[in-house]
Amino acid sequence: MQSLLKLYHIEAKPPSLGDNTGDLDRLKKVLSGYLQGRNPLVQLPRIAPVAEAFRQSGFKGYAAVINFPDGPQLVDFFAQAPEIVPGMALDLGTTHLEGALVDLLSGKVLQRAAVENGQIQFGADILARIHFAATKVGKQRGLDLLHESVMASIHGLAAELTRHLKLKTTHIMAMCVSGNTTMAHFFLKQNPYHLCREPYIPVLNTPDPFSASQLGLDLHPAAIIWVMPSIGSYFGGDLISGIIASGLDQQGETCMLIDVGTNAEVVVGNRDWLIACAGAAGPALEGGVARMGMRAEPGAIEHCTIDTENGNVTYQTIGGAPARGICGSGVIDLVAGLYLARIIDIRGKFRPNQPQAEGRLLTQGDSLAYIVVPAEEAALGEPIMLSQIDIDALMRSKAAMYSILETITNQVGVSFHELHRIYVAGAFGKHISPRQAIVLGMLPDLPLEVYTPLGNSSQAGAELMLTDESARERCRNVVSKITYVELNVNQEFMIRFSGSRFIPHTDHSLFPSVPFHGEP
Amino acid sequence: MQSLLKLYHIEAKPPSLGDNTGDLDRLKKVLSGYLQGRNPLVQLPRIAPVAEAFRQSGFKGYAAVINFPDGPQLVDFFAQAPEIVPGMALDLGTTHLEGALVDLLSGKVLQRAAVENGQIQFGADILARIHFAATKVGKQRGLDLLHESVMASIHGLAAELTRHLKLKTTHIMAMCVSGNTTMAHFFLKQNPYHLCREPYIPVLNTPDPFSASQLGLDLHPAAIIWVMPSIGSYFGGDLISGIIASGLDQQGETCMLIDVGTNAEVVVGNRDWLIACAGAAGPALEGGVARMGMRAEPGAIEHCTIDTENGNVTYQTIGGAPARGICGSGVIDLVAGLYLARIIDIRGKFRPNQPQAEGRLLTQGDSLAYIVVPAEEAALGEPIMLSQIDIDALMRSKAAMYSILETITNQVGVSFHELHRIYVAGAFGKHISPRQAIVLGMLPDLPLEVYTPLGNSSQAGAELMLTDESARERCRNVVSKITYVELNVNQEFMIRFSGSRFIPHTDHSLFPSVPFHGEP
Repeated sequence: MQSLLKLYHIEAKPPSLGDNTGDLDRLKKVLSGYLQGRNPLVQLPRIAPVAEAFRQSGFKGYAAVINFPDGPQLVDFFAQAPEIVPGMALDLGTTHLEGALVDLLSGKVLQRAAVENGQIQFGADILARIHFAATKVGKQRGLDLLHESVMASIHGLAAELTRHLKLKTTHIMAMCVSGNTTMAHFFLKQNPYHLCREPYIPVLNTPDPFSASQLGLDLHPAAIIWVMPSIGSYFGGDLISGIIASGLDQQGETCMLIDVGTNAEVVVGNRDWLIACAGAAGPALEGGVARMGMRAEPGAIEHCTIDTENGNVTYQTIGGAPARGICGSGVIDLVAGLYLARIIDIRGKFRPNQPQAEGRLLTQGDSLAYIVVPAEEAALGEPIMLSQIDIDALMRSKAAMYSILETITNQVGVSFHELHRIYVAGAFGKHISPRQAIVLGMLPDLPLEVYTPLGNSSQAGAELMLTDESARERCRNVVSKITYVELNVNQEFMIRFSGSRFIPHTDHSLFPSVPFHGEP
Repeated sequence: MQSLLKLYHIEAKPPSLGDNTGDLDRLKKVLSGYLQGRNPLVQLPRIAPVAEAFRQSGFKGYAAVINFPDGPQLVDFFAQAPEIVPGMALDLGTTHLEGALVDLLSGKVLQRAAVENGQIQFGADILARIHFAATKVGKQRGLDLLHESVMASIHGLAAELTRHLKLKTTHIMAMCVSGNTTMAHFFLKQNPYHLCREPYIPVLNTPDPFSASQLGLDLHPAAIIWVMPSIGSYFGGDLISGIIASGLDQQGETCMLIDVGTNAEVVVGNRDWLIACAGAAGPALEGGVARMGMRAEPGAIEHCTIDTENGNVTYQTIGGAPARGICGSGVIDLVAGLYLARIIDIRGKFRPNQPQAEGRLLTQGDSLAYIVVPAEEAALGEPIMLSQIDIDALMRSKAAMYSILETITNQVGVSFHELHRIYVAGAFGKHISPRQAIVLGMLPDLPLEVYTPLGNSSQAGAELMLTDESARERCRNVVSKITYVELNVNQEFMIRFSGSRFIPHTDHSLFPSVPFHGEP
């Protein structure tokens, strides 16, 4: 395994009257022997510290060289070889930043931590923040505030990661940042204005790696900062990380990668080709619509079943805590259960007089709502409910999801049954029951073992970029060979979307394993 | 002629839903077609301005690419092609900064100017400034003050150069800096401490080119700053410029380059090999020792002759102004004249009763002095005199000079007669009469046409570096192939020095064209 950074043992002949080579030139000369004769670059701010450390170490010690894509850079000199050289893998999420400290020498993970994204104060979601970026607060641009805010969060996370290991953040000599396209823009202080406006064009998708000091990051000033490239406004570096982490780009058999949040991003491909698309899935799957919806946090109902005979509800909360709300996977289970128990029909509408719902349906405004957890069991002393509105939102989300999968596979003439594996990224992948998603007609009716949760693949990809030379090469290949399909204007997608707004689907033959409760 | 900077005409397809390439990626893609598929680097601070200018120009216009040694960098984008793109060639002298503005597109010189080096306030000569660099003034290091001071001088010069052309300094997109090794250290804010201490080692001889903003230069933020490499503490980038400007490195026949100031730097070589050395010549040749000595400025006696029969003195001042003092070339003429008129002997000592000196010799303290210009003719109403002490200093300088030339040619087994040409750089080369220097035994007794004045070759070399691609390649070759001989510890030099302390030399056969006045 070759890493981004290498330490080279140096023993140079000390200067003399017969050898007046400059200090830095002397060091570079010895180094170039290790680098196939290539002369490592030394950035202006590193000249003095490196040359001084070299002289003070008696012209011997360890030279730290970072392999930038355009060539090696000599960045530091140590009298003694450091035992570890930390790098930071950062998943730059909209709500949270998750980080891992890895040792660039051994590739080992040293520490993990997470912090909130401080930008939340300026807008809960991406769209609100893009709008905020264009405003002015006093003399500051919203963009500057968003940038400063995420920088502060990153510094907080770096401090948290290093604290336990008795390191300083300035010891961190590399960082790989993986996030959606908008977060990458905020991080790089780039104008996100066009990201959310047709035709949805980023300022840039593939930033060149740069040094920490160029952005004012409080890491080692010469630390290499690698921002995962994106493919478009709605297909960010976090997805490229997912491809790298899943190995989709290396597989002989065709696989699929799904990442679901407010948007659903999907990649299909193998080692020969990759096709990607993204589409709005609606916030239902992030717990963002249901009145009782919540993120996958302690107290969230992540799984539940409804007895098809007597309508009894059994559920499971994250951490086993008293129920506080329902997260995305809980909503999917619940709606699938409501359908199997015939409490809702194929359109997702409540059937008012279904015995299995006895005592649990009540009228809210001019529609119905279902009591999942009665007030006396719930953490906040209020019943946890699912309304018709919530179900309608989920129906749109699941329809969007399935239509996206159909459209993209159809683009390349691959049927669902040809998919060797379907990787499901993130919290959604971790918590979802693929079986219940199949019942809803959200995911294709395939053997359950096809579905493989990936975990935080944005984070995992960033780690690989720091520790695995081949990951960086793969990343470049992925970006150059991936084809992006824009769904916003795709006619086929719109037609398929209509067909998917039933449980499991208007074409029931697509879901042979799901009972058909077609009668009203 | 290929220049450091190129403008490429760009007409990109505007973004659309079917083509979601990021703005900067779109531009880089078109550019890479011009660059043999190579992807130009965009430094972080240039992303936003370049991408914005590209979009605002409707995705067409002119991309500015600077060819850094490690690859092309996309630095700016213009809707209209600029008529000129200025670059600044800077001779960073100890007392003066001379600059030329050149058009990087056509290679033409647009403007020339010069300013004083503001560092003079901290020390008149290099050594004083090196000592000052190590001091503290309040909380600031002397080095910081010296750096700031030279930056201010450069900014002043840049302003002066651009003012006449109605340009801004921020239009300047390249600068080549040519100066001695110490001045290069001050410019780069590097510690000069070891430059003047055995074994005289620079922090670095060959800085990598960098961007103006990295040093806080008030030029175009992405302007490439190219510092001419040095060979050692006493052989600076100004000399490498001299080699480039003279073409020494390209000639089939062996030539010599001499640059004389307080130090004498000498290069001998041809297109196959180069050997260099430097030695202290003493300040006599810079007008720094003689009480009436001065730089080659208006009112300085630059040439004079003494009638060998009647001792009449005729002289010529710079600008024809009333005489104020004597510059280096005037001192050489004068001492040669004193020797030819037998007023001094072969040791350079006054002969008290020589009739040609009648009325011009007077006693000063316990030695004699010669009246060059009587008080009534002189600008300041005081006689301009040359004392025995002044002559003694010149004798040491001329002996050092000749010994350096002998030692270095002997190192490579080349006799003086094999030298096709001897280039004499700087003010010394411009003003000196080689014939009088030969009489003194300072320069070898060769046909006068061998001696070729070079002018400000430090400046000329810097200009070539900006306008001629091959000059940059030659510069790299010169640095890699030049051999530096340290004279400070050279036994041979010391022996030759003793033999050279007579006029013209103890071995008179070396100077057949010079009358021998050997008798006391």
